[in-house]
Amino acid sequence: MAFLLKQRAFLKLYVMEWIQKNKGYGYQMLEEFDETFKPYGYSPAHSEIYTILKELWADGYVTRDKKLRGSNPEDFQEIVLYRMTDKGKNELEAYRKLMKVELERCEGLLRKALKDHYS
Amino acid sequence: MAFLLKQRAFLKLYVMEWIQKNKGYGYQMLEEFDETFKPYGYSPAHSEIYTILKELWADGYVTRDKKLRGSNPEDFQEIVLYRMTDKGKNELEAYRKLMKVELERCEGLLRKALKDHYS
Repeated sequence: MAFLLKQRAFLKLYVMEWIQKNKGYGYQMLEEFDETFKPYGYSPAHSEIYTILKELWADGYVTRDKKLRGSNPEDFQEIVLYRMTDKGKNELEAYRKLMKVELERCEGLLRKALKDHYS
Repeated sequence: MAFLLKQRAFLKLYVMEWIQKNKGYGYQMLEEFDETFKPYGYSPAHSEIYTILKELWADGYVTRDKKLRGSNPEDFQEIVLYRMTDKGKNELEAYRKLMKVELERCEGLLRKALKDHYS
């Protein structure tokens, strides 16, 4: 039986909610995640997040539009804008319920270990 | 940077403390661990625990004595009794400090996710 949840499942929830709320650009998300988790000594591998985005797109949960950013052609940078589809919104609703149970289970297991060893 | 702690690090603390407290038999430990973690949907692989015991012995942290149990030779069962060495006691003291920080870090990360998504 499972020990703690996998990094990918944990990040998938953050990625989906971030897209739902921000309709945002991928690179902003990477920066925000780095900031979010810094106090916990955790820096998600960007490759992991790109894999999640690719899967969400392949499953039809998000659309992606490539845009060019910059003031003149020589500085143009290609950036990707993600948006949730209706199918994605339904998936997120179901996934949120699933992950609440799983996050609480894992937090409980760690809390038990702290209690067993340090109280 | 790290996501959550590994199963082996988590179990090693339980195994060492269990031996320190119980000077016990391996098979009792397996049963107790199954009971301990059942409410958390987690059942440690016995192979994982045997690997930890083997490593603790190889590092000189525990001794092991094989004994025979049973009332007559036909029913004899070989069981292994583990005891902490002085080197093991020192190691446990250091490992407890290390793991407190790590368990608290991981619990904080999960608590943050619960707060970010469900409050």
